[in-house]
Amino acid sequence: MLSATVFEDGGGSKEITDHDRISDLVGEPACLLWVDVLDPSEDDLKLIQHEFSLHPLAMEDLRHPGQRPKVERYDTHAFIVAYASNGNPRHLSELNLFVADGWMVSVRHSYKGDGCVDVLNIGARFDRTREGHNTVGFLLYTLLDAVVDTYFDALDSTEDELEEIESRIFVVDGPNESSLQQDLLVLRRELLLFRRRVVPLRDVLQTILRQEVRPVREDVQRYFQDVLDHILRVIDTLETQRELLGNAVDAHLAVVNNHMNDIMKKMTSWGAILFGAALVTGIYGMNFEYMPELRWHYGYFVALGWMLLLTTGLYTWFKRKGWL
Amino acid sequence: MLSATVFEDGGGSKEITDHDRISDLVGEPACLLWVDVLDPSEDDLKLIQHEFSLHPLAMEDLRHPGQRPKVERYDTHAFIVAYASNGNPRHLSELNLFVADGWMVSVRHSYKGDGCVDVLNIGARFDRTREGHNTVGFLLYTLLDAVVDTYFDALDSTEDELEEIESRIFVVDGPNESSLQQDLLVLRRELLLFRRRVVPLRDVLQTILRQEVRPVREDVQRYFQDVLDHILRVIDTLETQRELLGNAVDAHLAVVNNHMNDIMKKMTSWGAILFGAALVTGIYGMNFEYMPELRWHYGYFVALGWMLLLTTGLYTWFKRKGWL
Amino acid sequence: MLSATVFEDGGGSKEITDHDRISDLVGEPACLLWVDVLDPSEDDLKLIQHEFSLHPLAMEDLRHPGQRPKVERYDTHAFIVAYASNGNPRHLSELNLFVADGWMVSVRHSYKGDGCVDVLNIGARFDRTREGHNTVGFLLYTLLDAVVDTYFDALDSTEDELEEIESRIFVVDGPNESSLQQDLLVLRRELLLFRRRVVPLRDVLQTILRQEVRPVREDVQRYFQDVLDHILRVIDTLETQRELLGNAVDAHLAVVNNHMNDIMKKMTSWGAILFGAALVTGIYGMNFEYMPELRWHYGYFVALGWMLLLTTGLYTWFKRKGWL
Amino acid sequence: MLSATVFEDGGGSKEITDHDRISDLVGEPACLLWVDVLDPSEDDLKLIQHEFSLHPLAMEDLRHPGQRPKVERYDTHAFIVAYASNGNPRHLSELNLFVADGWMVSVRHSYKGDGCVDVLNIGARFDRTREGHNTVGFLLYTLLDAVVDTYFDALDSTEDELEEIESRIFVVDGPNESSLQQDLLVLRRELLLFRRRVVPLRDVLQTILRQEVRPVREDVQRYFQDVLDHILRVIDTLETQRELLGNAVDAHLAVVNNHMNDIMKKMTSWGAILFGAALVTGIYGMNFEYMPELRWHYGYFVALGWMLLLTTGLYTWFKRKGWL
Amino acid sequence: MLSATVFEDGGGSKEITDHDRISDLVGEPACLLWVDVLDPSEDDLKLIQHEFSLHPLAMEDLRHPGQRPKVERYDTHAFIVAYASNGNPRHLSELNLFVADGWMVSVRHSYKGDGCVDVLNIGARFDRTREGHNTVGFLLYTLLDAVVDTYFDALDSTEDELEEIESRIFVVDGPNESSLQQDLLVLRRELLLFRRRVVPLRDVLQTILRQEVRPVREDVQRYFQDVLDHILRVIDTLETQRELLGNAVDAHLAVVNNHMNDIMKKMTSWGAILFGAALVTGIYGMNFEYMPELRWHYGYFVALGWMLLLTTGLYTWFKRKGWL
Repeated sequence: MLSATVFEDGGGSKEITDHDRISDLVGEPACLLWVDVLDPSEDDLKLIQHEFSLHPLAMEDLRHPGQRPKVERYDTHAFIVAYASNGNPRHLSELNLFVADGWMVSVRHSYKGDGCVDVLNIGARFDRTREGHNTVGFLLYTLLDAVVDTYFDALDSTEDELEEIESRIFVVDGPNESSLQQDLLVLRRELLLFRRRVVPLRDVLQTILRQEVRPVREDVQRYFQDVLDHILRVIDTLETQRELLGNAVDAHLAVVNNHMNDIMKKMTSWGAILFGAALVTGIYGMNFEYMPELRWHYGYFVALGWMLLLTTGLYTWFKRKGWL
Repeated sequence: MLSATVFEDGGGSKEITDHDRISDLVGEPACLLWVDVLDPSEDDLKLIQHEFSLHPLAMEDLRHPGQRPKVERYDTHAFIVAYASNGNPRHLSELNLFVADGWMVSVRHSYKGDGCVDVLNIGARFDRTREGHNTVGFLLYTLLDAVVDTYFDALDSTEDELEEIESRIFVVDGPNESSLQQDLLVLRRELLLFRRRVVPLRDVLQTILRQEVRPVREDVQRYFQDVLDHILRVIDTLETQRELLGNAVDAHLAVVNNHMNDIMKKMTSWGAILFGAALVTGIYGMNFEYMPELRWHYGYFVALGWMLLLTTGLYTWFKRKGWL
Repeated sequence: MLSATVFEDGGGSKEITDHDRISDLVGEPACLLWVDVLDPSEDDLKLIQHEFSLHPLAMEDLRHPGQRPKVERYDTHAFIVAYASNGNPRHLSELNLFVADGWMVSVRHSYKGDGCVDVLNIGARFDRTREGHNTVGFLLYTLLDAVVDTYFDALDSTEDELEEIESRIFVVDGPNESSLQQDLLVLRRELLLFRRRVVPLRDVLQTILRQEVRPVREDVQRYFQDVLDHILRVIDTLETQRELLGNAVDAHLAVVNNHMNDIMKKMTSWGAILFGAALVTGIYGMNFEYMPELRWHYGYFVALGWMLLLTTGLYTWFKRKGWL
Repeated sequence: MLSATVFEDGGGSKEITDHDRISDLVGEPACLLWVDVLDPSEDDLKLIQHEFSLHPLAMEDLRHPGQRPKVERYDTHAFIVAYASNGNPRHLSELNLFVADGWMVSVRHSYKGDGCVDVLNIGARFDRTREGHNTVGFLLYTLLDAVVDTYFDALDSTEDELEEIESRIFVVDGPNESSLQQDLLVLRRELLLFRRRVVPLRDVLQTILRQEVRPVREDVQRYFQDVLDHILRVIDTLETQRELLGNAVDAHLAVVNNHMNDIMKKMTSWGAILFGAALVTGIYGMNFEYMPELRWHYGYFVALGWMLLLTTGLYTWFKRKGWL
Repeated sequence: MLSATVFEDGGGSKEITDHDRISDLVGEPACLLWVDVLDPSEDDLKLIQHEFSLHPLAMEDLRHPGQRPKVERYDTHAFIVAYASNGNPRHLSELNLFVADGWMVSVRHSYKGDGCVDVLNIGARFDRTREGHNTVGFLLYTLLDAVVDTYFDALDSTEDELEEIESRIFVVDGPNESSLQQDLLVLRRELLLFRRRVVPLRDVLQTILRQEVRPVREDVQRYFQDVLDHILRVIDTLETQRELLGNAVDAHLAVVNNHMNDIMKKMTSWGAILFGAALVTGIYGMNFEYMPELRWHYGYFVALGWMLLLTTGLYTWFKRKGWL
């Protein structure tokens, strides 16, 4: 699905529905053209390659999703790959951007029909704030800022999962045990894959800030500095969450080990208590001809009494020792 | 809550209660203006933005607390984010600073009503020591020095917690076990989050020392070198505490494992002792017609004697082996 | 097995079967010569050393396979070592390349008869795409691009193995247990050895991109940038797979520990249940003269009833506690 | 305790007992003055600050022991912090040095009355070797060389402790078990704290070798290179000891785990052996009216024989299996 | 033991037996002098110090073996420390080299009488290949190349040990268990100490390649590049072996833990089987007056039958469950 918008220098923007007019607008100095393609068909790709003379190597990347976030500079344009989240750290959709003087092309791959970044909203925001900055650099900033904002939503989600897991660490018993292990594994994997999509974006921003991406002029550098600062915060938070998760894993392992000690102490204690009683029954089960107690009238009840005494005595002793 | 103080070049300082006069003092060469805002209301923010022409991106950061410690340089002023502690490593309150030639604005977010840094005290100290250095650079140094001093208090607190934990590692038994695990986890998290607020401050100081923050002149560099040195000591101590805590965790795990071995040895020993006695009762509980011992008059007491002998013998043997 | 191909500037290529003609073609400005040797015999090595004046140190490397991926620059030519996979990360075959203005020599060691890279295919692809780039640089690009493509196949294979392992982590019981451990070890080793062959190739590409390898001209740098980008993706994926595998190992350890707890709980529960019943039989096995129950007509059945009751009671209790 | 020595250019040195004469000697070109203060009183500190115009920030550091090893350069002098050991890695005493053209001031904090470095000895050695180098640079070298030599003594001590621990790893049984854990923890802490005092000294030496410390001239650089080399050896050895200790910890954990397996095997084996015998007694303890064996004359002895056979048979079987 | 050889520019070499002639040959432009000292006596050290004016700091290093591999540059000569192996990674002998224009002095400390590098062989090889390179640089290359070759032999030895260990990981049972732990520890220590001697040599070579060691001229740089490449391969292989060993340790720990689970399952199963039979004997051992089964003629055999049935039934059930 291809849509094209023109932002005129004097203010005001309009949607271009007739795609043949795009070629006229490329190179037009008084306006800024943004072409956005969602889930491009082969025809869309051919159209934009032809209209904007995109480099074949970049086109090949477009056709093979799953690229690393990066920036590539070609003679007439730069090519940027980034990922946006729809608030869930597992749902990352690829975003390919071509920027040149006077135009930007964004090619988005949606995640289960969700394009993750709301281009209408970004266009409207750009329209509102572009005064004095009707350049592709400021448009790129507006877009990347929105992309990085989606990361904070994703971080909130992982933060919640982390807290939920931490609250379950010290509860060893119960049927949720193996699901805790699975949740830990899932969250670790989530943080790992998310981080892999965010960290290289730092290098992209640093390349822009070293002014190596020509269409981005010096007057908007400050804004990209702000985006970089947000990315650093995201990475910082991700690292912290990873370490906290690592701590949680360690703590849980220690808790499991301690729990085993507890079980063994219980087992030993009950074993001793029951065995004590059994020993009494064994003794009076012997078949000696002369065993005076056996002839006593209340011998049986005395034996039961002994067993009870032994049992409660051992029980109290183990209880006091903290084994039961 | 906004308060403004003017430090005159000749010496002496006065509180400005009429906030409309602030605008007159900005740009006044013969004096230094310090405006401090604690838990800013929206009106306060608008006032300072207007009076000092603060950059919109910095104002946005002010409105979203939780920034990373950093320094940002704008055309007319620099923006610094740092965190102060009130002696407890968990209580960190954000501190935002704007510095420019002739004025400094500090915006503080209090932690549960505690602004963490005592501005009155800092103002008084600056007044006392500013001779020949009535500049914003020296005022910033006085403030940051006080901030870093709060870290040493926090470190004393974590040091105490660490020692308390280390003293409990080798005591495995007892009801405090799972609380030890929780204390370990809490202290780890504390050190992690504290470190996250301190380490980036090193970069802030290094940026200042590279003389990239214009309002800070060369004549006070030496003082910032001293602050950096203190920060390095804080980071160094934090790292050491983390490693000591890691060692403690390892040692505790080993102690728990050894303890399990001890329990198992005890269990095995008692099992063998009791089972030995039970076997004797089993033997004399058999119903063979011809079992000579059964007819002996003292057979029963001999059997009891055997059981006692076996029991004490095994007990002594296990005791000597170190299993009991 | 030696084969030689000449790519003429005007287009068209031909196979050279008469190896004596090779010397005439070296230094011929209007054509590009590619000599490929698979599993070189000593004669082949002597021939190419003589015809192309290859450096003795490089020839020594040729004779001792197992070199690290690297690039060495000699006076008249450069020497590159790389590894290609045949889709299996364990099957890596060494590839030695000599490049100079006007010619390239590739010496391949096959893995169990598999040369891993399909030179015919690469030659055909070069022939198709070389327009305007009939240089050794573009030929080298075509070859390295094909080499790096083989890595993606190998990664798909390790990805499958990783997923297969992850699906088996939470199933502790069963006869596959120790084979899981072995599979984990094998995959770890595989990733380690694969990574060792890929990571140094990054440095090779970076050396080429710094334009330190003379025969590679500036006009094809962009293509090598693309190869480097692919290598970075391979390394990135390898790192991710390693971390995922590490997570899997941790999770499995925790699962095994938990499983042990479960077994111990089961053991303790059954022990208590059976021992309860045994205690009843012990009591009524005592030989006291006066034990009223023994004389009851239904005493036996009452005792059996007690045992049944005790057993099912304890069973239900442990079941509810989650120990069974 | 303050002592002052003057080294004259022509050779010969003399002790200055009249501290008022110190001020005359500062700035005297033909001689080198060394003032050493051990455990300074407030009067000593005031005296040296006044006589040598020491910087207030450095004086503040003097008053707060526990600084990181570092070098600070002030206008007229440099300030160096280092730590010396008295042969025990836990006994580190702080050493503060002021160096300027023509004089050096050393302020030492003793560890339990031990100043750690023997200044008399150092003075004598300097007197003996200073020919042609009667400069503060060479005096500083002589002192730092002596300091670093104390580290090697400390390393010998940790090496001994490490070897003693390694020899105890494979002995799991016995009463020393928990003391081994404690010794491991103590040694780890020792190495950690020692390393923390040595590693920053490397940076101090590198600063001197970059010729950024003015009073140290180029002609003695070679000697400081030698000191740096010694420090690198100390750090290298410390790292090796840490890794060896880490390996020892891992090995001990494995040994403990294996030991648990051994205990469990023993427990299981003895359980089976004793239970086998108990089952025989149980069978012949049954009260069936018709049990032919019970009437046999030697039935009892046959049963005992069976029990012995079963017991020794199982014992031999478990022994051969390696479980006993 | 001191031996001296002269390599004349025109070709040919001769042994110098009269050590007084050494002084004449130093500084002789038309020849290259190599003096080799094995296990130097104090006289040897004095002789070479005097003849070649060696620097006192270097001489001190010679007298204290155990230096780190390094290169030190003095005014007239350079001093290099390296280690050679005799094929066993534990047998490393120190090698000290002085190189200057026109001469090289090598001082070797033998390991148990083994000088590790075969100087006669190296001399002969140099004689054979020195054509056009009769310089100390090429002689140094020939020597270092031989030294690095000894590392590959050592790596083969550790490779064998590693494979031997890996083959024993999955065999938990048996008497070799604790020896496996010891072998793991020994190999880890071996790799650690070996690595410590090899890694700094990389820096030595890089210093030479930066042309900072004067006697080594540019024309032999290529050869030192080759030596560096070999060292990188050694380090790379060492790292790989360390990681493989780490994997093996992890895998073994998991195997031990799994084995414990297996033992516990066995223990639980046998406990249940035997206890089942015991319960039957307990029931028929009760003394109730009215127990119909006791009077049956075949009651006893029926009871034995029940026990057999129960036993085999439980056995089959546990077998099918994989616990036995």
